Amino acid sequence: MEKVNLAQKLSAFTDHFNPRIVGELNGQQVKLVKALGEFVWHYHENEDELFYVVKGSLDIQLRDKTITVNAGEFLVVSRGVEHRPVAREEVEIMLFEPAGTLNTGNVVNEKTVEVPRHL
Amino acid sequence: MEKVNLAQKLSAFTDHFNPRIVGELNGQQVKLVKALGEFVWHYHENEDELFYVVKGSLDIQLRDKTITVNAGEFLVVSRGVEHRPVAREEVEIMLFEPAGTLNTGNVVNEKTVEVPRHL
Repeated sequence: MEKVNLAQKLSAFTDHFNPRIVGELNGQQVKLVKALGEFVWHYHENEDELFYVVKGSLDIQLRDKTITVNAGEFLVVSRGVEHRPVAREEVEIMLFEPAGTLNTGNVVNEKTVEVPRHL
Repeated sequence: MEKVNLAQKLSAFTDHFNPRIVGELNGQQVKLVKALGEFVWHYHENEDELFYVVKGSLDIQLRDKTITVNAGEFLVVSRGVEHRPVAREEVEIMLFEPAGTLNTGNVVNEKTVEVPRHL
Protein backbone atom coordinates (compact mmCIF):
# COMPACT_ATOMS: atom_id res chain seq x y z
CA MET A 1 0.00 0.00 0.00
CA GLU A 2 1.78 3.13 -1.19
CA LYS A 3 0.66 6.70 -1.64
CA VAL A 4 0.57 8.27 -5.09
CA ASN A 5 1.92 11.76 -5.77
CA LEU A 6 0.06 13.19 -8.76
CA ALA A 7 2.76 15.69 -9.80
CA GLN A 8 5.43 13.02 -9.65
CA LYS A 9 3.41 10.58 -11.75
CA LEU A 10 2.50 13.30 -14.24
CA SER A 11 6.16 14.21 -14.69
CA ALA A 12 6.84 10.66 -15.91
CA PHE A 13 5.15 11.07 -19.29
CA THR A 14 4.55 13.77 -21.87
CA ASP A 15 2.15 12.40 -24.49
CA HIS A 16 -1.47 13.45 -24.83
CA PHE A 17 -4.73 11.51 -24.62
CA ASN A 18 -2.90 8.44 -23.38
CA PRO A 19 -4.19 7.67 -19.88
CA ARG A 20 -2.09 5.85 -17.29
CA ILE A 21 -3.61 3.85 -14.46
CA VAL A 22 -2.31 4.99 -11.06
CA GLY A 23 -4.84 3.43 -8.71
CA GLU A 24 -7.49 0.73 -8.49
CA LEU A 25 -10.29 0.26 -6.01
CA ASN A 26 -13.73 -1.29 -5.93
CA GLY A 27 -13.62 -2.20 -9.61
CA GLN A 28 -12.82 1.41 -10.47
CA GLN A 29 -9.60 2.90 -11.76
CA VAL A 30 -7.82 6.19 -11.16
CA LYS A 31 -6.05 7.39 -14.28
CA LEU A 32 -3.85 10.35 -15.07
CA VAL A 33 -3.85 11.87 -18.53
CA LYS A 34 -2.45 14.94 -20.24
CA ALA A 35 -4.50 16.55 -22.97
CA LEU A 36 -3.88 19.14 -25.62
CA GLY A 37 -6.18 19.89 -28.52
CA GLU A 38 -9.48 18.28 -29.44
CA PHE A 39 -10.46 14.75 -28.56
CA VAL A 40 -13.27 12.89 -30.36
CA TRP A 41 -16.99 13.10 -29.71
CA HIS A 42 -18.01 9.93 -27.87
CA TYR A 43 -20.08 8.53 -25.06
CA HIS A 44 -19.77 5.62 -22.68
CA GLU A 45 -22.65 3.18 -22.79
CA ASN A 46 -22.34 1.93 -19.21
CA GLU A 47 -19.85 4.13 -17.43
CA ASP A 48 -20.07 7.46 -15.67
CA GLU A 49 -16.76 9.29 -15.89
CA LEU A 50 -15.24 11.79 -13.49
CA PHE A 51 -12.81 14.45 -14.79
CA TYR A 52 -10.82 16.19 -12.06
CA VAL A 53 -8.51 18.90 -13.35
CA VAL A 54 -5.14 18.91 -11.59
CA LYS A 55 -3.53 21.70 -13.63
CA GLY A 56 -4.79 23.92 -16.42
CA SER A 57 -8.28 24.07 -17.77
CA LEU A 58 -10.42 21.61 -19.75
CA ASP A 59 -13.44 22.34 -21.92
CA ILE A 60 -15.94 19.51 -21.86
CA GLN A 61 -18.14 20.08 -24.87
CA LEU A 62 -21.64 18.67 -24.62
CA ARG A 63 -24.13 18.82 -27.48
CA ASP A 64 -25.98 21.76 -25.90
CA LYS A 65 -23.24 23.56 -23.97
CA THR A 66 -19.60 23.64 -22.97
CA ILE A 67 -18.45 23.31 -19.37
CA THR A 68 -14.99 24.66 -18.58
CA VAL A 69 -13.43 22.70 -15.74
CA ASN A 70 -10.54 24.47 -14.02
CA ALA A 71 -7.86 23.20 -11.65
CA GLY A 72 -9.45 22.07 -8.39
CA GLU A 73 -12.78 21.29 -10.04
CA PHE A 74 -14.39 18.11 -11.30
CA LEU A 75 -17.24 17.15 -13.57
CA VAL A 76 -19.06 13.83 -13.72
CA VAL A 77 -20.19 13.00 -17.24
CA SER A 78 -23.04 10.53 -16.97
CA ARG A 79 -23.19 7.37 -19.08
CA GLY A 80 -24.82 7.85 -22.43
CA VAL A 81 -24.02 11.56 -22.65
CA GLU A 82 -22.04 12.58 -25.73
CA HIS A 83 -19.04 14.69 -24.89
CA ARG A 84 -15.80 15.95 -26.35
CA PRO A 85 -12.87 17.06 -24.19
CA VAL A 86 -10.98 20.02 -25.68
CA ALA A 87 -7.82 21.50 -24.19
CA ARG A 88 -6.82 24.88 -25.59
CA GLU A 89 -3.58 24.60 -23.64
CA GLU A 90 -2.09 21.53 -22.02
CA VAL A 91 -4.13 20.25 -19.13
CA GLU A 92 -3.47 17.56 -16.53
CA ILE A 93 -6.44 15.46 -15.53
CA MET A 94 -7.26 12.74 -13.01
CA LEU A 95 -9.98 10.36 -14.18
CA PHE A 96 -12.09 8.11 -12.03
CA GLU A 97 -14.07 5.48 -13.88
CA PRO A 98 -14.83 1.75 -13.96
CA ALA A 99 -11.96 -0.58 -14.83
CA GLY A 100 -11.88 -1.27 -18.54
CA THR A 101 -13.51 1.98 -19.64
CA LEU A 102 -12.43 2.67 -23.22
CA ASN A 103 -11.09 6.20 -23.63
CA THR A 104 -13.07 6.82 -26.82
CA GLY A 105 -16.23 5.08 -25.56
CA ASN A 106 -18.48 4.06 -28.46
CA VAL A 107 -15.96 5.22 -31.05
CA VAL A 108 -12.90 3.25 -32.09
CA ASN A 109 -10.33 5.21 -34.09
CA GLU A 110 -6.69 6.25 -34.03
CA LYS A 111 -7.16 7.92 -30.63
CA THR A 112 -8.39 4.71 -29.03
CA VAL A 113 -6.05 3.28 -26.40
CA GLU A 114 -7.43 -0.16 -25.69
CA VAL A 115 -5.28 -1.03 -22.70
CA PRO A 116 -4.12 2.01 -20.74
CA ARG A 117 -0.75 1.36 -19.20
CA HIS A 118 -0.06 1.24 -15.51
CA LEU A 119 2.37 3.84 -14.32
CA MET B 1 -24.70 18.07 -15.00
CA GLU B 2 -22.69 20.67 -13.12
CA LYS B 3 -19.04 20.93 -12.23
CA VAL B 4 -17.95 20.90 -8.60
CA ASN B 5 -15.37 23.33 -7.23
CA LEU B 6 -13.65 21.72 -4.25
CA ALA B 7 -12.56 24.95 -2.54
CA GLN B 8 -16.04 26.40 -2.84
CA LYS B 9 -17.67 23.28 -1.40
CA LEU B 10 -15.09 23.08 1.38
CA SER B 11 -15.78 26.69 2.37
CA ALA B 12 -19.40 25.75 3.07
CA PHE B 13 -18.72 23.82 6.27
CA THR B 14 -16.30 23.90 9.19
CA ASP B 15 -16.87 20.78 11.26
CA HIS B 16 -14.50 17.81 11.39
CA PHE B 17 -14.95 14.14 10.54
CA ASN B 18 -18.35 14.84 9.02
CA PRO B 19 -18.16 13.94 5.31
CA ARG B 20 -20.38 15.59 2.70
CA ILE B 21 -21.30 13.90 -0.56
CA VAL B 22 -20.43 16.08 -3.57
CA GLY B 23 -20.59 13.57 -6.41
CA GLU B 24 -21.98 10.15 -7.34
CA LEU B 25 -20.99 7.80 -10.14
CA ASN B 26 -21.04 4.09 -10.85
CA GLY B 27 -22.31 3.27 -7.37
CA GLN B 28 -19.43 5.23 -5.86
CA GLN B 29 -19.49 8.53 -4.01
CA VAL B 30 -17.15 11.49 -3.88
CA LYS B 31 -17.09 13.05 -0.43
CA LEU B 32 -15.34 16.04 1.07
CA VAL B 33 -14.33 16.06 4.69
CA LYS B 34 -12.27 18.22 7.02
CA ALA B 35 -10.29 16.52 9.73
CA LEU B 36 -8.45 17.65 12.83
CA GLY B 37 -7.15 15.35 15.54
CA GLU B 38 -7.42 11.60 15.85
CA PHE B 39 -10.13 9.49 14.30
CA VAL B 40 -10.90 5.95 15.46
CA TRP B 41 -9.16 2.75 14.45
CA HIS B 42 -11.43 0.91 12.03
CA TYR B 43 -11.59 -1.04 8.82
CA HIS B 44 -14.13 -1.47 6.05
CA GLU B 45 -15.22 -5.06 5.48
CA ASN B 46 -16.09 -4.67 1.79
CA GLU B 47 -14.89 -1.27 0.66
CA ASP B 48 -11.57 0.08 -0.55
CA GLU B 49 -11.24 3.76 0.31
CA LEU B 50 -9.31 6.48 -1.48
CA PHE B 51 -8.01 9.49 0.47
CA TYR B 52 -6.92 12.41 -1.71
CA VAL B 53 -5.51 15.33 0.25
CA VAL B 54 -6.66 18.70 -1.11
CA LYS B 55 -4.99 20.87 1.52
CA GLY B 56 -2.76 20.13 4.46
CA SER B 57 -1.37 16.79 5.46
CA LEU B 58 -2.96 13.59 6.77
CA ASP B 59 -1.34 10.76 8.68
CA ILE B 60 -2.92 7.42 7.91
CA GLN B 61 -1.84 5.15 10.70
CA LEU B 62 -1.71 1.45 9.86
CA ARG B 63 -0.87 -1.23 12.41
CA ASP B 64 2.69 -1.54 11.13
CA LYS B 65 3.48 1.95 9.85
CA THR B 66 2.19 5.47 9.26
CA ILE B 67 1.82 6.97 5.80
CA THR B 68 1.76 10.77 5.62
CA VAL B 69 -0.35 11.91 2.69
CA ASN B 70 0.30 15.48 1.60
CA ALA B 71 -1.68 17.84 -0.65
CA GLY B 72 -1.73 16.48 -4.21
CA GLU B 73 -1.29 12.89 -3.06
CA PHE B 74 -3.69 10.02 -2.51
CA LEU B 75 -3.66 6.68 -0.74
CA VAL B 76 -5.97 3.75 -1.34
CA VAL B 77 -6.66 1.82 1.87
CA SER B 78 -7.73 -1.67 0.90
CA ARG B 79 -10.76 -3.34 2.43
CA GLY B 80 -10.05 -5.19 5.63
CA VAL B 81 -7.01 -3.08 6.52
CA GLU B 82 -7.21 -1.41 9.91
CA HIS B 83 -6.38 2.28 9.75
CA ARG B 84 -6.67 5.46 11.74
CA PRO B 85 -6.60 8.91 10.13
CA VAL B 86 -4.83 11.49 12.26
CA ALA B 87 -4.57 15.18 11.38
CA ARG B 88 -2.04 17.13 13.42
CA GLU B 89 -3.38 20.31 11.79
CA GLU B 90 -6.60 20.78 9.88
CA VAL B 91 -6.65 18.87 6.61
CA GLU B 92 -9.09 18.90 3.70
CA ILE B 93 -9.72 15.53 2.06
CA MET B 94 -11.59 14.18 -0.95
CA LEU B 95 -12.78 10.60 -0.52
CA PHE B 96 -13.79 8.11 -3.21
CA GLU B 97 -15.62 5.07 -1.95
CA PRO B 98 -18.70 2.95 -2.59
CA ALA B 99 -22.04 4.55 -1.81
CA GLY B 100 -23.11 3.74 1.70
CA THR B 101 -19.62 3.33 3.15
CA LEU B 102 -19.80 3.98 6.89
CA ASN B 103 -17.16 6.49 8.01
CA THR B 104 -16.14 4.40 11.02
CA GLY B 105 -16.33 1.07 9.18
CA ASN B 106 -16.66 -1.82 11.59
CA VAL B 107 -16.90 0.47 14.60
CA VAL B 108 -20.01 2.36 15.63
CA ASN B 109 -19.47 5.10 18.17
CA GLU B 110 -19.95 8.82 18.70
CA LYS B 111 -17.91 9.58 15.57
CA THR B 112 -20.16 7.50 13.33
CA VAL B 113 -22.12 9.53 10.80
CA GLU B 114 -24.63 7.10 9.41
CA VAL B 115 -25.94 9.19 6.56
CA PRO B 116 -23.43 11.71 5.22
CA ARG B 117 -25.20 14.78 3.96
CA HIS B 118 -25.19 15.96 0.40
CA LEU B 119 -23.68 19.36 -0.08
